[in-house]
Amino acid sequence: MEYAKLSPAELSSELASLRAKYDELKSQGLKLNMSRGIPCREQLDITQTMLGVISTPEECIAENGTDCRSYGVLDGIPEAKRIFSEILNIPEANIIVAGNSSLNIMYDAVARAMLYGVVGSPAPWGKQGTIKFLCPVPGYDRHFSICESLGIEMINVDLLDDGPDMDAVEALVSSDASIKGIWCVPKYSNPTGTVYSDEVVRRMANLKPAAPDFRIFWDDAYIVHALYGAPAKQANLFEEAIKAGNENMPFIFMSTSKISFPGSGVAVLAASDANIAQIKSVMTMQTIGFDKLNQLRHVRFFGNAEGVLKHMDEHAKLLRPRFEAVQTVFERDLAPAGIASWTKPEGGYFVSLDTPDGCAKRVYTLMSELGVTITGAGATFPYKKDPRDRNLRIAPSYPSVADLTKALEALCLCVKIAAIEKMQAE
Amino acid sequence: MEYAKLSPAELSSELASLRAKYDELKSQGLKLNMSRGIPCREQLDITQTMLGVISTPEECIAENGTDCRSYGVLDGIPEAKRIFSEILNIPEANIIVAGNSSLNIMYDAVARAMLYGVVGSPAPWGKQGTIKFLCPVPGYDRHFSICESLGIEMINVDLLDDGPDMDAVEALVSSDASIKGIWCVPKYSNPTGTVYSDEVVRRMANLKPAAPDFRIFWDDAYIVHALYGAPAKQANLFEEAIKAGNENMPFIFMSTSKISFPGSGVAVLAASDANIAQIKSVMTMQTIGFDKLNQLRHVRFFGNAEGVLKHMDEHAKLLRPRFEAVQTVFERDLAPAGIASWTKPEGGYFVSLDTPDGCAKRVYTLMSELGVTITGAGATFPYKKDPRDRNLRIAPSYPSVADLTKALEALCLCVKIAAIEKMQAE
Repeated sequence: MEYAKLSPAELSSELASLRAKYDELKSQGLKLNMSRGIPCREQLDITQTMLGVISTPEECIAENGTDCRSYGVLDGIPEAKRIFSEILNIPEANIIVAGNSSLNIMYDAVARAMLYGVVGSPAPWGKQGTIKFLCPVPGYDRHFSICESLGIEMINVDLLDDGPDMDAVEALVSSDASIKGIWCVPKYSNPTGTVYSDEVVRRMANLKPAAPDFRIFWDDAYIVHALYGAPAKQANLFEEAIKAGNENMPFIFMSTSKISFPGSGVAVLAASDANIAQIKSVMTMQTIGFDKLNQLRHVRFFGNAEGVLKHMDEHAKLLRPRFEAVQTVFERDLAPAGIASWTKPEGGYFVSLDTPDGCAKRVYTLMSELGVTITGAGATFPYKKDPRDRNLRIAPSYPSVADLTKALEALCLCVKIAAIEKMQAE
Repeated sequence: MEYAKLSPAELSSELASLRAKYDELKSQGLKLNMSRGIPCREQLDITQTMLGVISTPEECIAENGTDCRSYGVLDGIPEAKRIFSEILNIPEANIIVAGNSSLNIMYDAVARAMLYGVVGSPAPWGKQGTIKFLCPVPGYDRHFSICESLGIEMINVDLLDDGPDMDAVEALVSSDASIKGIWCVPKYSNPTGTVYSDEVVRRMANLKPAAPDFRIFWDDAYIVHALYGAPAKQANLFEEAIKAGNENMPFIFMSTSKISFPGSGVAVLAASDANIAQIKSVMTMQTIGFDKLNQLRHVRFFGNAEGVLKHMDEHAKLLRPRFEAVQTVFERDLAPAGIASWTKPEGGYFVSLDTPDGCAKRVYTLMSELGVTITGAGATFPYKKDPRDRNLRIAPSYPSVADLTKALEALCLCVKIAAIEKMQAE
């Protein structure tokens, strides 16, 4: 039944019935968590043998003779650069293979810009007064936390079906020199699963920023994380930026956190020659080098980019039923009421759900009281402020399909309750 | 023959003889490196089996049930904290076990202070105008590089036989609120091998800084790196600072870079409750967590602090002959000339050599032309400026005893040549 077509009495009756179900569910004392994009246990197991691929002293030697057990090599061993070069389609010389966390290298990239500036900066960002970033929304909470932590003002830009609203991005970036960056998750975006179109990638590469030191923070976290076959093809920002004469504009990031082991993967930064040189000049103050043995483990386990893609097929097999459960339950329990919309990602780790305006926080609270943890309402927006209080991020990867289905059914119930409460209050 | 007692003619004759030997050596085309404190191959081999200690999924589970393959745990797994708590004699709650590099956590500690300040800061260091650090000299070049990179002014303080000149430190720190830090390597100091006396540790803990946000950067890099038996006992800065009401003053660092694998070890930060809380509040913006599998490898391999000490005995067996070669060659080739002095460390990775004033750079050049790389002259001082141009850092760990002896003999020859050249020029 479509809620908009119900009479007040019918709505009240529906709410009473939903609340009865809610109370019944509450009495079950659920303890479920679908709050974060964490691989499930089976996904971790498929990488298990990586832990044993280097064992003898001889196996610790990189192809150029470097003993990976010792100091040295700031920017990653050559064979690790090569794999990520193949995946990103960016030359090895423009790649730094770092430690276990792309969040860490993204944070460091912003912090470094605050302290030293970037290539083209007239001064460190921290000495240029107010600094602003564009934030396509809904987006990734940890990107926004970095800005908030460092006192960088965030401006919301709508994420459309083909990527950020480029009319808005172009207008803002070209008119305001205090705008120094934009956060992008170009493929299977967090939380919507959006794949930026080639046109959006090209318009991004062709931006004419008022700031001489504007950077695109291109977090390619889900570059190979397709649910159905080969990853979506996408124009190459690195190449497009060179063509546009903007080669220093992109900072490109990825990691194997959701390929091998979250917490024990390797992270990657790619950028122009000048950017790489400037980054390394500071990075060499910070560390002698990252964990090369772990880089070597990844190389020996995956072999090459093709090996990574094959491995991602195994992940997809485990993830597909979970993502499909989201669609099945939402279609069955939410669609008829006509109160919500959600995305149907073909990759990545999340589904984005929009409830009626003003309902997301209420849904979160109702879910918490049931014992089901979901990502906090507002988390997908800068300052945790969803202007319409409607967006919720669904992270289906971690629970079993059975638990996930229970959690999703509870979610639909809570969305319906919140929606009717809202309708009654208006 | 004591050079000071030689006549000009005798000196000339000696120089001619030394130069003949130098030319003969040069014709051999040496290619030796004793520039950095790098463990030798045999030292790496004794940790080899660590790479295999975790292999099955069950072996990846920490004692509190955490699956170390996945996300989470910002500050280190409990069993890793426990080992470092035993080594440092600091409560587990005051310890963060981080990634592979203590240099990285030291850099981050300074960068964080620049961007956010520390507990007690009226403003971030970066917004307090000129910031200064005290640098006991000779010291560790990478400490100084961090300051130079971040625009922190460095003030030299003499390192005496029992630690930094505390009269100078106390006078400076108590009178100048722009002095925010001091770099210390308290045990087997780099490069002198100095062990700070208990009195120095206590005076350090009892400093009355003019700055409300002064920090002691206590780099305990060689805390268990004794050459002869048990590590030197030393008063506990953490405890002494609490007694003195200065509990927030110390930032204590160590790593296993020279215990397990340089580049694939784990690094540790210890500090007061308030410091740890502030550090974690920023660190959580930077990363979800460090490599817990590698922490677990260390725990499983070493077991406990006693296991670490036993392992260090194996390192000592390999290092002792190298350190003894330094003393043997210097005693034989340098002592009679009466032109140089050097330290006799009982631990750590370095020997500090003082040539006659104004000779260190010349010795470095002479050595380079022979094909022997030593640490650059001046490297042990801020801004690479040794005011007396006399200090050279000897790093005996990496070459074989045979190669090391050759390099040391060459060094003695070069020191003698430079000394006579200097005497003749005066």
